[in-house]
Amino acid sequence: MEIVGLTASQITTLIASRRLSSVEVAQAFLERIDELNPKIEAWVTLDVERVLADANKSDEKRSQGCLMGRLEGVPIGFKDIFFTKGIPTTACSEIYKDLVPEYDAKSVQLIKEADGIMLGKTVTTEFAWTDPSPTKNPWNFDHTPGGSSSGSAAAVATKMCPVAFGSQTVGSVLRPAAYCGVVGFKPTFQSVDRYGLIPFSPSSDTVGWMSRSVEDIVLLWNAVRISNTKELEGASRETAWPLRIGWIGGFFAQESDDETQGNFHEILKSLVAEGAVVEEVELPQSFEKFQRDVKTVTEVEGARFHREMFEKDPNLYSPLLAATIENGLNTKDGEYQNALERQVGFKGDMDNLAKTVDLLVTPSTPSPAPSDLSNTGNGMFQAPWSASGLPTVTLPSGLSTKGLPFGMQLIGRSFGDDDLLERASWCESRIGLDLSPPV
Amino acid sequence: MEIVGLTASQITTLIASRRLSSVEVAQAFLERIDELNPKIEAWVTLDVERVLADANKSDEKRSQGCLMGRLEGVPIGFKDIFFTKGIPTTACSEIYKDLVPEYDAKSVQLIKEADGIMLGKTVTTEFAWTDPSPTKNPWNFDHTPGGSSSGSAAAVATKMCPVAFGSQTVGSVLRPAAYCGVVGFKPTFQSVDRYGLIPFSPSSDTVGWMSRSVEDIVLLWNAVRISNTKELEGASRETAWPLRIGWIGGFFAQESDDETQGNFHEILKSLVAEGAVVEEVELPQSFEKFQRDVKTVTEVEGARFHREMFEKDPNLYSPLLAATIENGLNTKDGEYQNALERQVGFKGDMDNLAKTVDLLVTPSTPSPAPSDLSNTGNGMFQAPWSASGLPTVTLPSGLSTKGLPFGMQLIGRSFGDDDLLERASWCESRIGLDLSPPV
Repeated sequence: MEIVGLTASQITTLIASRRLSSVEVAQAFLERIDELNPKIEAWVTLDVERVLADANKSDEKRSQGCLMGRLEGVPIGFKDIFFTKGIPTTACSEIYKDLVPEYDAKSVQLIKEADGIMLGKTVTTEFAWTDPSPTKNPWNFDHTPGGSSSGSAAAVATKMCPVAFGSQTVGSVLRPAAYCGVVGFKPTFQSVDRYGLIPFSPSSDTVGWMSRSVEDIVLLWNAVRISNTKELEGASRETAWPLRIGWIGGFFAQESDDETQGNFHEILKSLVAEGAVVEEVELPQSFEKFQRDVKTVTEVEGARFHREMFEKDPNLYSPLLAATIENGLNTKDGEYQNALERQVGFKGDMDNLAKTVDLLVTPSTPSPAPSDLSNTGNGMFQAPWSASGLPTVTLPSGLSTKGLPFGMQLIGRSFGDDDLLERASWCESRIGLDLSPPV
Repeated sequence: MEIVGLTASQITTLIASRRLSSVEVAQAFLERIDELNPKIEAWVTLDVERVLADANKSDEKRSQGCLMGRLEGVPIGFKDIFFTKGIPTTACSEIYKDLVPEYDAKSVQLIKEADGIMLGKTVTTEFAWTDPSPTKNPWNFDHTPGGSSSGSAAAVATKMCPVAFGSQTVGSVLRPAAYCGVVGFKPTFQSVDRYGLIPFSPSSDTVGWMSRSVEDIVLLWNAVRISNTKELEGASRETAWPLRIGWIGGFFAQESDDETQGNFHEILKSLVAEGAVVEEVELPQSFEKFQRDVKTVTEVEGARFHREMFEKDPNLYSPLLAATIENGLNTKDGEYQNALERQVGFKGDMDNLAKTVDLLVTPSTPSPAPSDLSNTGNGMFQAPWSASGLPTVTLPSGLSTKGLPFGMQLIGRSFGDDDLLERASWCESRIGLDLSPPV
């Protein structure tokens, strides 16, 4: 197998057994980027010399007998809203075009401490909101790659890197991951340090990442999780069997198209054949207002961060973000306070729902990536879990008749990330797909 | 002189020289309250047995050779929004009618540690806002005593206690003090701990107090100031002479009535005769928007505290407070953020203005206490200093033709409270008034 087809876990294994060097790995991915990025536009900043120097340092260090890090030699992309020391961090906005941070975001720092290679910065939609980015969906250029972590999803899908970081405020990790046919993970709210991440809505901004296997998701999780994150009492049922899966109809059934529902139930059937117990679960009543509330909270908090820059020069903002900021500035404080308060009740209800089974599942998106490049698609299947802080994973679950990926969204309990990842790994092995886009 | 006519400083001196006991002092003030409170309605809660027991303990302690505290035996009133352990704290609202706190507010605790006697709780307007309280202005019952610290001002004016605590969000200490003809002090924002004070607008809520002499203001200041409050670099000119006084015309001249302006300039003339140098100073341009901004910030922050209680039962709120909460709930977040930001600039401008002279002065109120009992008068002469956090003192400065007190407002530099009090003391001795209402 060629190097760029390897997962992060495979790379570290081959480096450990001296069958690969960090420099060979870095060179292979840099060549792949050189070849594909002009078409896919997944990367915004690369510093080839620095990447090769870092890889060289990794090899030298090991040749001197140093122990290898958990992510030794693994090239990792970061969405361009993570601060990177000495490397431009633009949020893909005209406003930040000259920003070169003097320090690394916490996630970047932890990746470097684990001897991973900061490969470069991936395209984000402007300030991680919903105006489309130039990144292409590698499955079909006429369809959106999703957003806001567009570049990270497309880069992982096209093997320009094995893993890449994104962030999710509403649906910005799992949606592009699903549209591009890769694995995506959003851990429990506040279980990964957000220091150095350009904010949008502090009530829900969450660091997440993509890869082509759950194993790689776990590798990164163990590198960046806040070490004192405790499993909540009773969150872990350990190796409970049979796995009880609760699938959510209602809103998720009404909003998704027939082919998506077909794929979803087909996968459920295959999991039952493997011994899982499947039941439908119902959304709590507080679900009714969450969409309006998540809009209110996100708009107000987004507007707070952007207000000064926006008022100084609104023309530097793209239309969807500008409208969001204006909505936020015009939202009544009482409405915002009420929405925040209702979200407290909603979070409790959603966590209780997650506790009724081992795993909640929904389709990851209402449809495969839409053929509408004026926006980044529909994040409403992610929003409930962003608003409630529960950990989620998307797994590729098949291809549509048009050749676009479907995804299945798996939801765990608050701070039950380890359980969720273990169960996601079981599902992944039963679904048994290996998707590769035609580029 | 009868006991109730003594200042706090005189009381501690007489107790120290064993010419008075704490019990005698407490009894004298309790009798005075018994006589006058049915008419004035300045007190909402008294616990006579506890007060006498505390006074008795003070006497016993000293008879056993213990050192006396800074406020030994001084009976002190607290506005009914200061938490008092075991004593009802109602904010004079139906909603809190059954609240009996389990701990003391920090100011109450510090007074007790200095061996002062917590005499009782004084009337506040409902939740320290602008709906009138039952308290009477002792100079004329047809005129408002001001608010929101109505009870503390009326109690000190009528010698029911030598000193009493209030709080100021817009104009709630200096306005009632001026209307009732006593000395009032609002220290620099955040130089006294607000722990245990029922909040209204955290951006400006400030603990303050009233007495019948600047000397007593200083006595309490040294008991409750945050000990690590530092004089800002250059705030103190020490014993600078001549005293440079900047009087503010503009808004303050336009808004006050002729008789008030007459009294104000007469006092200024008398200070010049004593050697002070007097000049007019101009308000900064940012003053133009401060009134609108202070309204926005106060309404939004007040509404945040009251929202849940208000939505549960709006009928428990009086009309002016209810309207304020509704305005706050309906204020756009962008408007609030903009107001907060402009206030930062305004604070800087006002502090710079205060630095151009040794003392800023204005009339304390646009007119003496109005004969309108539907509200608590006009706090707009206090609002600029509440919003900018500068320390202020009001001194009684004469009586109107109708027999109502005038006040002069003295403003110091941020954290220049010691200087301000020293200069206020100089002005007080030169003005040389001893006002006593006709009750």
